[in-house]
Amino acid sequence: MAKTIYVLNGPNMNLLGTREPEKYGRATLADVDRLCRETAERYGFEVVFRQSNMEGQLIDWIQEAQMRGATGLVINPAGYTTTSIAILDALLACSMPVIEVHVTNIHARESFRQNSYVSKAAKAVIAGFGIDGYALAITGLARLLGATAQG
Amino acid sequence: MAKTIYVLNGPNMNLLGTREPEKYGRATLADVDRLCRETAERYGFEVVFRQSNMEGQLIDWIQEAQMRGATGLVINPAGYTTTSIAILDALLACSMPVIEVHVTNIHARESFRQNSYVSKAAKAVIAGFGIDGYALAITGLARLLGATAQG
Amino acid sequence: MAKTIYVLNGPNMNLLGTREPEKYGRATLADVDRLCRETAERYGFEVVFRQSNMEGQLIDWIQEAQMRGATGLVINPAGYTTTSIAILDALLACSMPVIEVHVTNIHARESFRQNSYVSKAAKAVIAGFGIDGYALAITGLARLLGATAQG
Amino acid sequence: MAKTIYVLNGPNMNLLGTREPEKYGRATLADVDRLCRETAERYGFEVVFRQSNMEGQLIDWIQEAQMRGATGLVINPAGYTTTSIAILDALLACSMPVIEVHVTNIHARESFRQNSYVSKAAKAVIAGFGIDGYALAITGLARLLGATAQG
Amino acid sequence: MAKTIYVLNGPNMNLLGTREPEKYGRATLADVDRLCRETAERYGFEVVFRQSNMEGQLIDWIQEAQMRGATGLVINPAGYTTTSIAILDALLACSMPVIEVHVTNIHARESFRQNSYVSKAAKAVIAGFGIDGYALAITGLARLLGATAQG
Amino acid sequence: MAKTIYVLNGPNMNLLGTREPEKYGRATLADVDRLCRETAERYGFEVVFRQSNMEGQLIDWIQEAQMRGATGLVINPAGYTTTSIAILDALLACSMPVIEVHVTNIHARESFRQNSYVSKAAKAVIAGFGIDGYALAITGLARLLGATAQG
Amino acid sequence: MAKTIYVLNGPNMNLLGTREPEKYGRATLADVDRLCRETAERYGFEVVFRQSNMEGQLIDWIQEAQMRGATGLVINPAGYTTTSIAILDALLACSMPVIEVHVTNIHARESFRQNSYVSKAAKAVIAGFGIDGYALAITGLARLLGATAQG
Amino acid sequence: MAKTIYVLNGPNMNLLGTREPEKYGRATLADVDRLCRETAERYGFEVVFRQSNMEGQLIDWIQEAQMRGATGLVINPAGYTTTSIAILDALLACSMPVIEVHVTNIHARESFRQNSYVSKAAKAVIAGFGIDGYALAITGLARLLGATAQG
Amino acid sequence: MAKTIYVLNGPNMNLLGTREPEKYGRATLADVDRLCRETAERYGFEVVFRQSNMEGQLIDWIQEAQMRGATGLVINPAGYTTTSIAILDALLACSMPVIEVHVTNIHARESFRQNSYVSKAAKAVIAGFGIDGYALAITGLARLLGATAQG
Amino acid sequence: MAKTIYVLNGPNMNLLGTREPEKYGRATLADVDRLCRETAERYGFEVVFRQSNMEGQLIDWIQEAQMRGATGLVINPAGYTTTSIAILDALLACSMPVIEVHVTNIHARESFRQNSYVSKAAKAVIAGFGIDGYALAITGLARLLGATAQG
Amino acid sequence: MAKTIYVLNGPNMNLLGTREPEKYGRATLADVDRLCRETAERYGFEVVFRQSNMEGQLIDWIQEAQMRGATGLVINPAGYTTTSIAILDALLACSMPVIEVHVTNIHARESFRQNSYVSKAAKAVIAGFGIDGYALAITGLARLLGATAQG
Amino acid sequence: MAKTIYVLNGPNMNLLGTREPEKYGRATLADVDRLCRETAERYGFEVVFRQSNMEGQLIDWIQEAQMRGATGLVINPAGYTTTSIAILDALLACSMPVIEVHVTNIHARESFRQNSYVSKAAKAVIAGFGIDGYALAITGLARLLGATAQG
Repeated sequence: MAKTIYVLNGPNMNLLGTREPEKYGRATLADVDRLCRETAERYGFEVVFRQSNMEGQLIDWIQEAQMRGATGLVINPAGYTTTSIAILDALLACSMPVIEVHVTNIHARESFRQNSYVSKAAKAVIAGFGIDGYALAITGLARLLGATAQG
Repeated sequence: MAKTIYVLNGPNMNLLGTREPEKYGRATLADVDRLCRETAERYGFEVVFRQSNMEGQLIDWIQEAQMRGATGLVINPAGYTTTSIAILDALLACSMPVIEVHVTNIHARESFRQNSYVSKAAKAVIAGFGIDGYALAITGLARLLGATAQG
Repeated sequence: MAKTIYVLNGPNMNLLGTREPEKYGRATLADVDRLCRETAERYGFEVVFRQSNMEGQLIDWIQEAQMRGATGLVINPAGYTTTSIAILDALLACSMPVIEVHVTNIHARESFRQNSYVSKAAKAVIAGFGIDGYALAITGLARLLGATAQG
Repeated sequence: MAKTIYVLNGPNMNLLGTREPEKYGRATLADVDRLCRETAERYGFEVVFRQSNMEGQLIDWIQEAQMRGATGLVINPAGYTTTSIAILDALLACSMPVIEVHVTNIHARESFRQNSYVSKAAKAVIAGFGIDGYALAITGLARLLGATAQG
Repeated sequence: MAKTIYVLNGPNMNLLGTREPEKYGRATLADVDRLCRETAERYGFEVVFRQSNMEGQLIDWIQEAQMRGATGLVINPAGYTTTSIAILDALLACSMPVIEVHVTNIHARESFRQNSYVSKAAKAVIAGFGIDGYALAITGLARLLGATAQG
Repeated sequence: MAKTIYVLNGPNMNLLGTREPEKYGRATLADVDRLCRETAERYGFEVVFRQSNMEGQLIDWIQEAQMRGATGLVINPAGYTTTSIAILDALLACSMPVIEVHVTNIHARESFRQNSYVSKAAKAVIAGFGIDGYALAITGLARLLGATAQG
Repeated sequence: MAKTIYVLNGPNMNLLGTREPEKYGRATLADVDRLCRETAERYGFEVVFRQSNMEGQLIDWIQEAQMRGATGLVINPAGYTTTSIAILDALLACSMPVIEVHVTNIHARESFRQNSYVSKAAKAVIAGFGIDGYALAITGLARLLGATAQG
Repeated sequence: MAKTIYVLNGPNMNLLGTREPEKYGRATLADVDRLCRETAERYGFEVVFRQSNMEGQLIDWIQEAQMRGATGLVINPAGYTTTSIAILDALLACSMPVIEVHVTNIHARESFRQNSYVSKAAKAVIAGFGIDGYALAITGLARLLGATAQG
Repeated sequence: MAKTIYVLNGPNMNLLGTREPEKYGRATLADVDRLCRETAERYGFEVVFRQSNMEGQLIDWIQEAQMRGATGLVINPAGYTTTSIAILDALLACSMPVIEVHVTNIHARESFRQNSYVSKAAKAVIAGFGIDGYALAITGLARLLGATAQG
Repeated sequence: MAKTIYVLNGPNMNLLGTREPEKYGRATLADVDRLCRETAERYGFEVVFRQSNMEGQLIDWIQEAQMRGATGLVINPAGYTTTSIAILDALLACSMPVIEVHVTNIHARESFRQNSYVSKAAKAVIAGFGIDGYALAITGLARLLGATAQG
Repeated sequence: MAKTIYVLNGPNMNLLGTREPEKYGRATLADVDRLCRETAERYGFEVVFRQSNMEGQLIDWIQEAQMRGATGLVINPAGYTTTSIAILDALLACSMPVIEVHVTNIHARESFRQNSYVSKAAKAVIAGFGIDGYALAITGLARLLGATAQG
Repeated sequence: MAKTIYVLNGPNMNLLGTREPEKYGRATLADVDRLCRETAERYGFEVVFRQSNMEGQLIDWIQEAQMRGATGLVINPAGYTTTSIAILDALLACSMPVIEVHVTNIHARESFRQNSYVSKAAKAVIAGFGIDGYALAITGLARLLGATAQG
């Protein structure tokens, strides 16, 4: 499973496009999936794209990414961002670079959304670009890994 | 599924009646279920009554309530009340009124039980009436929705 | 004075209906009075209904309720909710059950409105149902006292 | 009662001139009354000037000002500045502009005097000019209301 | 009015003897009154003994004590101890020594009862001796004033 | 199921031995399982040994231990230690003694790892002995239960 | 340079009139300059009116005011209000009275705008009157200095 | 050793009379000793009077008082008041009533002097009466113990 | 000046490449300049690239960008990130989208680097990608503006 | 002095068995001494067992243990746990492993007992097993040192 | 530029001697300059002595010192001590030892003057010796660098 | 005893040279003693040099210095720096100047080492120069006292 990037999405991200669209936009999670694959393809990466409302399920997938030797991990921890030390611990056990993405700029929102545990294990953070943040995250990850756009 | 109210119960609520009965009382969750159905019936509502120890499962059900067009949602978030931003986010994505219920008066208990994230998305809060709080919540919800007792 | 419930209202509640109606609604305190009497009557209770802007007056009335052997006390402490230890002390000296009511959901408002001293002496709390909260409070109180609706 | 400004003074302001004169100055509350009337007169306003040590009495007067359609309200909340949410609520229910005045510069004093609840409802704040602050407050209020000095 | 001591009691002190007697004891406020007069008499002082649930009334009486040239002031601010800057300000305007008394040891109780504003203006504080604290306060005040027991 | 001890392990404990071995050591969870069984056997106890990344699953197992009448419960809550009130509530509903174990000395680590909710329901806590902490926990539990090593 | 008042304006005040006009109003800094001169003239004062985005430049000017023996100093520290101890220190070194002005009522805005270091050195503070606050500040300053309006 | 009261003095109390006399007065510790003996004698008590700069020595003496069956204990913990949990623990192990005395009113001093650990084990607290506080403490202790002045 | 992006760099960014290279990398600010121009060119934008150690200079340039109608603004506020309300105010006065960039992941560094005032005015934030963060910022900005890569 | 373990006990531990026995149990410090020697003997260690109420004495003994080349150090810092940086510093100067023991589970007690300075220098912590905690500490220490039970 | 020491002075230090002389003394910055040169000469160092009110200017000079290979840097950051992360960052980029000097003992002043960012990059700190602190700083620096007094 | 300087050293300073030498250096306390005497001699002062692990012993010595009329006092309070109000009080009772010395720069270490109580009574503070700090302290003290180097 060389050359695979995991893109993991936390709770309520399956509602993207219908959930408070004036805040999160109208693109759906399927759109994010497609955007991630297209971007990753340009750098020769495959994408494993998943979403769960379960904290433990996300931890399982992070462990899976590590065990399968994934090249990188992009995570939007959503509602677990500032509350989950368990996800932080799973990420700390990873050897590949981790990129944290948020659709909105969490640093301009309520204070309880601003202190991310996940950031402590992340190589980099992107917030506020809407779903384009995922494309930037994969591009940035590719550069970190020394990949160059193909074709 | 018009005219349906979801009543969701958080972790350890399945122990109601046996768990610290001097604090939570001796009525069981089955009693709560029955009380909710009886009360809802008076206003012409059906009840979907569920309990889970899983944060993610509760989120799934909140999303289900929204997707099925439930008329109202009553939630006793129990141990997730003050720790779950993920449940808050799920509730913020709902368009029906949300009522938060607690069997005990959490505002007279330990300080770590007092700042509810769920309250930020709730229309109203009831705490301290024992299981009668559920009946009051449904009655209050019915009034909010303009329903009047039947028969 | 057996079978009497005191319903006490704190500062500015006399403005109900005209004060920030988009927040507090358009029903007046007279409406609340009527609603309380109707609800109490169903359970065979009389109501003493009062409002004052004076912290000390409210304390006098709480003491009066206790001295006259009132069956229950419903209080909307309004602006004194989070600042009055003196009202808390008066309530702690009462032997009848105390129910705290708020027209709005104070837990979703400014942080300085959220830590109620009154809650420490209250059996139960209801917030956010508008003036219907008073009816629910009296109904809940009646159930606590073992009363059943009559007629 | 068009064209009337209420000037309300909180607890211990009746001691002005004798109370810690090195801090509050030697002018008396009667001097303030006279200064307010003279200043208001210049802009064609009448003044209702009052003082009370009672929080509830001040709330009554704020409500009275609103009910009588006062043009503006100047308040020196004194000892209730940082403790009274009840006064804040009364002011939030007002439609005329509110000006907060302090004889001393509270922002250079003990920290417990610095976070004014009243400021949340005030259009403007003046502190530290001694009793001249009242004259400035009325002048500023007049400008806000578009009045110009007469004669 | 030379040689007079004011003894002022705050909210709910009129309930002494019946209010939570396991905490506050079974002596009544009338007992306190008698004890104060007896103790004061020994040093040749008269006592003005008062109780009110009104913050503003207490302020009026503090001002009265100052205006009548009272020799000393003993105050049990009760529920206003930690919330009333207005009472603090009234005391700061006094020139006679102020003694703060509490029936219980407030420093061993809930944290919200521990930071007394009144203490900032008090010469001395006595807490935890039950009603004997009043006798000790007057004795201590007498010593401060250089009085010696008579007869 | 008399004489059974539950040993429950929280999120990421399945990675033991590979996850940050310089911090958590090189022994695996299978080693812990074996060590627990060997130690328990010496005192005549059987062991139910489980691990999950799911908060809710851990709660289910705690409830199962209680319902089956387990003699004791050893828990390493890992990443849920300082964030899970739901696990705390499940433990508070247990009647057998609870021992909290941590492989590392959490009290010498980041501050966010130091305030354990689980400790509020635990009889005792052991931290920093690596996997030997489990053996010590079972030994200590046996002594609490009055068991003596056999054979 | 007897009889001169310095009026200093901090960062972004040069944008007045175009910057968030719904908050700061539509008058420009040139309007403020004119208003200050007109007001000062009435009391026989000249005005030195300056604006800078540089913290150090503002300090230079404060020192200049002191060295030239200015009669008074009016300062709107804008964005440096709550962050600049260096400006506070410069003001503490001044012997003329300092008046702090804010166009908006900073006490009703975000909490990070509310604790002014500058206030610790200011004789008085005016906030919320829009640009009229400058006129009031100069008027108040004149009264402090014993000047009376001329002509 | 029936009928003995221990009076213990903490660090620097041996300097009484010379140490910051404008704050602590000019009476010496020998004066305090004499005052204590005279007061105790009136109620038929003997006094063990000691002072140490050593926290551990004070603990030894508290333990000695308990082991010898002292009737009461008066302690001025001085500099150890707010820092010594070890002294608190020693006092918690005592069965006789403990009275805490301070020469100055610590509640009107620096904030770091205000949260007394000792108060958590004290029956009563006296602060601010100078050395007369010791006499009041012994008098109050005698009343608590039911002793009446003799002769 | 249509189609121009301002890229502003705060204090010490001129040291990039030599300053703590293990933390900030070995690329220089000239490299960043080149990277920005190359990336911007792809979307048809010109770049104004500047660096200053002066807070006030950065404010001047932000104002300049607004006045010249820049299409977007990328800012690495460096040491002023968490201390400059003045820069925040300048950005709040801008109408073009603002992107905040940090070379390192500030959210995984010292706590005093984590609460960015600039974020309150930023549309999006990128941190931790080294100098590639600038390229991602410009790409993201281009997408926000609807620009597509050319040629 | 190879093969020696120091077991040090802090203030009031000499009262064990008589001090609040419902909290600390009825075993005495002599029992602890015996238990420690028996346990240590099994692993071939000698024990130096000491108790002091003096912070400085404990520091002296910690230094002695280090200078004599003790194999391990077990410490119950009791009342100095959360207040003594001096003991922490002494332990930081030690090269042998340090085990912290508490008779009660301090993490379930008052908050001021929960942040141990000693833990920062401890290899491991045991709390809540009563005096058995000492035996577990020595056993755990032996395992850390690679010792195996003998005979 | 081998053998050169930079001595940098922050805002308002140019006022030394005239600014609050009872606090800062009557020596001027020219006196400090002379004292520094005399002291440095004794160890064979030259001195670059500068003062600015501009934060950015100070950063420029720190960078200059580093680029010119200065042997040491003495800085009195004055009003920027506790507010400037930008100066901290500039100092962190330096390879020569940095000594922080304050004329007054900032640790005995207002709390907002006590947490120095500069200290995080300083080798040593001297505060409270008046201008002699500069001489001590240079002497100390010389010793750190192994220089010995000459002649 | 005119012309004597006390140099007092707190807990664990006797370990200097062996205790964490990478942090505290390799010079011993005997070296410090010698350095102090040499430096003092140059100014005609004698030195009383002491070390203790006992808080109370240090207090005794501070009192001794005061009683014997010492000319100055240099103290390295070590582990008691941030915890001992008792030492602070002893120093506040001294009339000679007090200099606080630390071998390391405590302001760049753990936060619990940074708020020195001792500083509140110190004329000046020196931290981070290793043992040279003592020489600088004595030199600085000599200058404060007007002494000049001899010979």
